[in-house]
Amino acid sequence: MVEPTTETTVGQVNTTLGDHLLGELRDAVGANGLLADPDVVLGYQRDMMPLAPAGTPGAVVLPSSTEQVQAVVRACAAAGVPIVPRGAGSGLSGAANAIDGCVVLATTRMNHILEVDPDNRLAVVEPGVVNRDLRGAVEKHGLFYPPDPSSYDWCTIGGNLSTNAGGLCCVKYGVTTDSVLGLETVLATGELLRTGRRTVKGVAGYDLTKLFVGSEGTLGVITQATLALRPLPQAPATLVATFGSTAAAGAAVSRVVREGLVPSLMEIMDQASIRAVEQHLSTELGAGTGSATLLICQSDGGGETARREIRAIEQICTDVGAELVHWTDDLEEGRMLLAARRAVLPSLEIYGAWLTDDVCVPRTRIADLISGCAEISERYGLLIAVVGHAGDGNMHPTITYDPGSEREFAKAHQAFDEILALGLSLGGTVTGEHGVGKVKREWLAREIGPVGLGVHRAIKAALDPGNLFNPGSMFALYDEDKD
Amino acid sequence: MVEPTTETTVGQVNTTLGDHLLGELRDAVGANGLLADPDVVLGYQRDMMPLAPAGTPGAVVLPSSTEQVQAVVRACAAAGVPIVPRGAGSGLSGAANAIDGCVVLATTRMNHILEVDPDNRLAVVEPGVVNRDLRGAVEKHGLFYPPDPSSYDWCTIGGNLSTNAGGLCCVKYGVTTDSVLGLETVLATGELLRTGRRTVKGVAGYDLTKLFVGSEGTLGVITQATLALRPLPQAPATLVATFGSTAAAGAAVSRVVREGLVPSLMEIMDQASIRAVEQHLSTELGAGTGSATLLICQSDGGGETARREIRAIEQICTDVGAELVHWTDDLEEGRMLLAARRAVLPSLEIYGAWLTDDVCVPRTRIADLISGCAEISERYGLLIAVVGHAGDGNMHPTITYDPGSEREFAKAHQAFDEILALGLSLGGTVTGEHGVGKVKREWLAREIGPVGLGVHRAIKAALDPGNLFNPGSMFALYDEDKD
Repeated sequence: MVEPTTETTVGQVNTTLGDHLLGELRDAVGANGLLADPDVVLGYQRDMMPLAPAGTPGAVVLPSSTEQVQAVVRACAAAGVPIVPRGAGSGLSGAANAIDGCVVLATTRMNHILEVDPDNRLAVVEPGVVNRDLRGAVEKHGLFYPPDPSSYDWCTIGGNLSTNAGGLCCVKYGVTTDSVLGLETVLATGELLRTGRRTVKGVAGYDLTKLFVGSEGTLGVITQATLALRPLPQAPATLVATFGSTAAAGAAVSRVVREGLVPSLMEIMDQASIRAVEQHLSTELGAGTGSATLLICQSDGGGETARREIRAIEQICTDVGAELVHWTDDLEEGRMLLAARRAVLPSLEIYGAWLTDDVCVPRTRIADLISGCAEISERYGLLIAVVGHAGDGNMHPTITYDPGSEREFAKAHQAFDEILALGLSLGGTVTGEHGVGKVKREWLAREIGPVGLGVHRAIKAALDPGNLFNPGSMFALYDEDKD
Repeated sequence: MVEPTTETTVGQVNTTLGDHLLGELRDAVGANGLLADPDVVLGYQRDMMPLAPAGTPGAVVLPSSTEQVQAVVRACAAAGVPIVPRGAGSGLSGAANAIDGCVVLATTRMNHILEVDPDNRLAVVEPGVVNRDLRGAVEKHGLFYPPDPSSYDWCTIGGNLSTNAGGLCCVKYGVTTDSVLGLETVLATGELLRTGRRTVKGVAGYDLTKLFVGSEGTLGVITQATLALRPLPQAPATLVATFGSTAAAGAAVSRVVREGLVPSLMEIMDQASIRAVEQHLSTELGAGTGSATLLICQSDGGGETARREIRAIEQICTDVGAELVHWTDDLEEGRMLLAARRAVLPSLEIYGAWLTDDVCVPRTRIADLISGCAEISERYGLLIAVVGHAGDGNMHPTITYDPGSEREFAKAHQAFDEILALGLSLGGTVTGEHGVGKVKREWLAREIGPVGLGVHRAIKAALDPGNLFNPGSMFALYDEDKD
């Protein structure tokens, strides 16, 4: 078994915290909020991205309140010990990975929904609330919190905010930042910064709320969020179409966009994904024809609106030469069709371990990305299944490899990087929704260039001059710190 | 006639530019791109907010390209002469007002639509493109650029970006920042910063795009924008309802929100607005009954969807006791009904000069804001008409005063401030869409508090350490610089 990368390539820190700091942390969060047992802290070492480096935390704190977070921040700042904030650890970039001797600050105990205000369509929550719990709580009021990352049944809102998480809903409802009205964030000074507001609109000052969303724990610790909610959508109508070529499926996506249709979900699966799911679920998605690509669309416009939208998509799929098009407004059948999409990653486990990438390309370049991944797959001799959010061009090419072979793991890493280069060459970005973290630092620099990197460093230095929060994650503060 | 405030309370700068800098500016933008005649530059002294201080520019430059902007920025930075960027000057916060001896950089000649890409639903534009021109250009492709500030027939996209402009569409389609994918911005070093991307999603690095949107020219000069477009909406159905009390109209707004309806427009007019428009247009909006409040709603969902939505709003209005409810899906009649709303500000001119405020409150507090404004109106003996975007709580209480009376002007200023205090006390913000500029600096500080102000200053100092761009606008860089 190849162990995930464990060397610490980020930050230079103490490997022991010392009794004084441990005492202060205990005072801050109470004895049951402090974990220092070496075996226990290892459980907080990394998120779900095997490629990212991870060190060994000196301690883990589990604060229950904003005041406790402030006390932890002040104690660590005074001791010069870095803090790595984290939620549930479902991330896919290593942003929440520990560095040696750091204090991991997990917000999972701050899990209260403080308010749901249906008249103003907003909720106020602590960062440790699990995405699914928030969805359920607001649904009782006929409201909807859109961001739905695949891990929604265990990821936390704090992690969603820090990574600006997406999901299947984004094509119609946007990403996390589009649902945030305001934040409370503990700064490196221990001060509490309130940004944004409870109103729908507001332009008083810089948009600091959206600066903190997606900052991956490098600028502060989010301790409260005011979130905008939407009316609960109607039960969706669901369409599935299969295509003999990736190009035909890509043409269908382009036409849906160009004709002004906005389905609430539009997912794509390539042939490798289809085969894995067929095998896993013992079903026939490609109708036995070995179809190259499958599209799944939903419309949640309700009744006749949804049927009209789905029929228009059906017509487009037929026009571009789909092999099979089927749609239903039966809710249970729709759920079953979508289950195939959700089964892709578990299905791939029959081939070994998997490593999922995250590039976003202009919607007209999806077919090019899929065919490029097929070429990379062939060249490396590794199965790469492409599945993704066709409606917004955010693709997740997923590389499978033998976890027992160091050589395959190294090849998988190389293929991962080649997919990023391919995404950039198609006018895309190296991360559509997973983030940079500790796995794509060099790729961020490559994408945004030296001027962009300089601005990142200037903002980080302005808000966190002591490099207290998640040092070396997302980007290195100085060039000499680069690998 | 009371002149608008002219003393310069912001920044300390040279009052003459000197031949060396003028020569460099001429080299940068060409002789016909440089205005230095004292009478001519006065035309670039201020925007449309009479309360904000304005100084006398040393020169005005009208660059035609990003390279020219970079050359101007480098020359001014070397000379230590501040730059005030501006578009058309339609702003309502004084953000574009000159300070003595500055260089005003007007982007109006950079007015090219560089690209419209229907397949990816985006446009790439220069900052001097007029909002209406962009709307027209994309409409030909069946596309829609939502932000529609009242000045849309002459304001520029650059100004819209810098103020994060709103409009009537925001209740359904959001504000300017929700339509921006990427920017090119010239920094204080003269370097060109590219932020964002052409893809729908992307989380590589901090969201610098949304930091620059709404930064009111204090962080750089935007020279290019990549904008997200939407499908062109259907022809709207339009509803008008009148209410005997503000509370009843407020209850209708709350119920529309709570019941999950999302009209594409929901505007409110109080009794003073209704009367002014009735007099101006010689029509009867209150049906002769002296109605206290009028709501105008549109649904652009098309056909049966629009009719269903409008009928649901009709039912709500009836339930809360509307005096009259009328709706139509005739486009021309709908336009005429909306014309009453658009006529409010011109109608108020019969009472003298007007001064429009811009507070945004939670949607449940709209009635409280209107009744509070009535109380302020009575106390100051000044007519205050409240008109605004009920769907998002963004209200524009508009104070009328005798422009020949210094006493009335002073009272109007006091009433303006009292309305801001009222908005804050209702849980709102001091600016929903107009911005802070040079008129609400102290109010920004009051709203965001010392920690928020400190973060603003840190970011400004990080990106513009020489305080080159619009110094003293939005906030003062140091406490001692405060009025």
